[in-house]
Amino acid sequence: MMAPLCQANTTIVFEEKSLSVTRTLASYLTASRIDDIPEDIRHESRRSLLNYIGCAVGGSREPSVEILLSTLQPYFGKPTAGILARPERMDPLHAALMNGMTSHVFEYDDTLPKNYIHPSPPLASALFAYASANRVTGKDFIHAFLLGFETEARIGNAVYPAHYEAGWHITSTAGVFGAAAAVGKLLGLSVEQMIWALGIAGTQASGLRENFGSMVKYFHAGHAAKNGYVSAILAKSNFTAGPHSLEGPRGFAAVTAAKYDLSKITNGLGTKFQIRDNAYKPYPCGLVVHPTIDGCIALHQEHHPASADIVAVRVRVAPLVLDLCNKKDITRGLEGKYSIYHSTAVGLIRGKAGLQEYTDAAVNDPLVKRVRERVTAISDTTITEDQSHIEVELADGRKLVRFVEASIGNLGIPLTDRQLEDKLRDQASFVLPSAQIEKLIELCWQIDKLEDVGVLVQATVKP
Amino acid sequence: MMAPLCQANTTIVFEEKSLSVTRTLASYLTASRIDDIPEDIRHESRRSLLNYIGCAVGGSREPSVEILLSTLQPYFGKPTAGILARPERMDPLHAALMNGMTSHVFEYDDTLPKNYIHPSPPLASALFAYASANRVTGKDFIHAFLLGFETEARIGNAVYPAHYEAGWHITSTAGVFGAAAAVGKLLGLSVEQMIWALGIAGTQASGLRENFGSMVKYFHAGHAAKNGYVSAILAKSNFTAGPHSLEGPRGFAAVTAAKYDLSKITNGLGTKFQIRDNAYKPYPCGLVVHPTIDGCIALHQEHHPASADIVAVRVRVAPLVLDLCNKKDITRGLEGKYSIYHSTAVGLIRGKAGLQEYTDAAVNDPLVKRVRERVTAISDTTITEDQSHIEVELADGRKLVRFVEASIGNLGIPLTDRQLEDKLRDQASFVLPSAQIEKLIELCWQIDKLEDVGVLVQATVKP
Repeated sequence: MMAPLCQANTTIVFEEKSLSVTRTLASYLTASRIDDIPEDIRHESRRSLLNYIGCAVGGSREPSVEILLSTLQPYFGKPTAGILARPERMDPLHAALMNGMTSHVFEYDDTLPKNYIHPSPPLASALFAYASANRVTGKDFIHAFLLGFETEARIGNAVYPAHYEAGWHITSTAGVFGAAAAVGKLLGLSVEQMIWALGIAGTQASGLRENFGSMVKYFHAGHAAKNGYVSAILAKSNFTAGPHSLEGPRGFAAVTAAKYDLSKITNGLGTKFQIRDNAYKPYPCGLVVHPTIDGCIALHQEHHPASADIVAVRVRVAPLVLDLCNKKDITRGLEGKYSIYHSTAVGLIRGKAGLQEYTDAAVNDPLVKRVRERVTAISDTTITEDQSHIEVELADGRKLVRFVEASIGNLGIPLTDRQLEDKLRDQASFVLPSAQIEKLIELCWQIDKLEDVGVLVQATVKP
Repeated sequence: MMAPLCQANTTIVFEEKSLSVTRTLASYLTASRIDDIPEDIRHESRRSLLNYIGCAVGGSREPSVEILLSTLQPYFGKPTAGILARPERMDPLHAALMNGMTSHVFEYDDTLPKNYIHPSPPLASALFAYASANRVTGKDFIHAFLLGFETEARIGNAVYPAHYEAGWHITSTAGVFGAAAAVGKLLGLSVEQMIWALGIAGTQASGLRENFGSMVKYFHAGHAAKNGYVSAILAKSNFTAGPHSLEGPRGFAAVTAAKYDLSKITNGLGTKFQIRDNAYKPYPCGLVVHPTIDGCIALHQEHHPASADIVAVRVRVAPLVLDLCNKKDITRGLEGKYSIYHSTAVGLIRGKAGLQEYTDAAVNDPLVKRVRERVTAISDTTITEDQSHIEVELADGRKLVRFVEASIGNLGIPLTDRQLEDKLRDQASFVLPSAQIEKLIELCWQIDKLEDVGVLVQATVKP
């Protein structure tokens, strides 16, 4: 609801229950103990972190990362922190920013299909920055990560879909809360301080979807990581915020979502873990395009159509697909990630949609371009976001048809631990020698046992 | 309007004219020359800057400023920049943040009555930080300031009132654009780069009114200054953003305002200067309370009511007053700034509402508290935001009545240059010796003639 202006000399009255959402969450965060977290949930957090590390390593050499790093380098503080996969040292706040940028830039990161948050980049980026500058045990790290995850996922659930549909990049707007909660947990904030940390985080929540397809989209995740980190350290110093940042009439939910359900933040806290819903992408582009890619790859494997064979392609997809990925006339790899047309084309004629299919070269490949121009995408409300219907007309008159019921990597068909490892290998191979990659994978699975998570950060950097 | 979800395979079609708002603004900003700016406009900018400097000096020792500074100090970069009124050196981004905090913390800064932006803190804070680290002439400084002012004021006008009513702290959400435009002008951005600077700024726009009455409210202005500065330097390095950050379907206006008018950004650019509408507060609290304070002070001067004489007070005010300043049960000076009840009480029994009336001591003064508890505020749609109707019942049966038609300091009765100087003297006297204050005032009036604005920054610091 839009918070109304006060009328006459009345005050807006909220039920006591809804007025305590921020406090309830903060109380849970401060009271939670790692021993309360079941082993399968811990394992899912290791899977999330392994996937995150692969993205951060793989993305660490992107041109937009280089620009961000070299432009901000003159402003870096004392080199007490490191970032993932690069040798540069800096202050932990900029380290959080850089980690967020590198881990998100490939569009290969984890996704919550319930609300389209990419949960790990804003959260883990702050935590690894903190752990590179301060000694943190793996057990405490995993715990803080899970609590940050709960925080951002639940806040995202509460405001989704209205918040996302309005145009907010929910990864950063919800992510900043996750980073604040996680770093705040490591700092041992009191309940009051945690309320302030959430408040300082929420008042920095930002990120517009209008920037999808440009470099600053990836900056969003880093900005959220850095701002969440700042929120936690300021709160630790008793820098105050309002007490009702989530639920108040001018708070995050009311201001950024036309409709929201705050009970999703508090119901089942500590028993129903949101990380169970985390999904890992098999393709480095928006999740909503994945069912179409699955179908196109299957058609390729069966029929091997060449670019010149294809007369027309019609894909029927859920409305959100066109809302997010409707770029047709494109020239840059980055834009390809937001083009259902491009993904359809590479799936059909290359039979894959890996990192090499989203380079500038791939987007400008005449064979790909030819097919892309022949793709029509039809928004169909009877198709779910996990489905796709593909029809290909060939020059010889044949018609190839494929209906995808559920996409690989989504909740129904999750990537296995082994597939996640292979995904990390694929990304890290751009940056690290293979022996180091194997060592890194081992450390990710052993993270809870580390005495100092700084060791894992160090293991991502080429010696 | 809420940007709708795409339906079927249509794309949202915008008129070409409205799609060029960001580009039109960026083109104006890059093409403008200082010689195009009339002298009266330059004088108003000197008045704004003098008022700003007084606030930044006066606020530089507040407890919340000390917390922010000491907490972030370990993260500061190379000490290439200075802040106003304090000896600490740091990187220019943190300097922008600190200047924003100090200049806003007294609630004494300038205000645009058209949209309730406090325009100078986010804007001038970034510019003085830049000028402390880089040689900038006074002429270029004033020019950049005026262009930043146009930018934030016009963007504010375009989204006001829906944006503000929704709960956005418009000082920071619009201010970040002003800071980006101003620093971008000094950096000599191209049109494309200025479009990106505005885009990177807009995607960081944040600040929730839920935090009014807490420390982080003042951080908002600094956050906007810092983020605007970052936007400009990133754009200078060709770090890209979307091309339609203001007008796009997922851009700033559509996402943050239920109703907006983009023509207010572009109409009369370069001829109708928004700084003509700038107002300077005679009291360090929300502008909307000022007419009531004027009336209460007038009643005090006529009747000198003591606390014990007052049986009841009824004030009739515009609805926005209660929306913003409805805090009754208060214990901290900061909260007093958001209390129509407190301001009424100090006006009536102390006959003034200066910095000393908004301390913790003043708020907890039993004489003030007694009157505060007897004030009723009535929201009345027939009363404008520049008016107030006050009725005081005394123990001896007398009834004092006052109607304020227009408040001092607002556009109809602007503070004179001399009054602005006295306001600076009053604030700076907490921090600087009087000879230095007089020198500082002189420098403010001479700013266009300075070869290096760093001299002015230096003049605010006690040697």
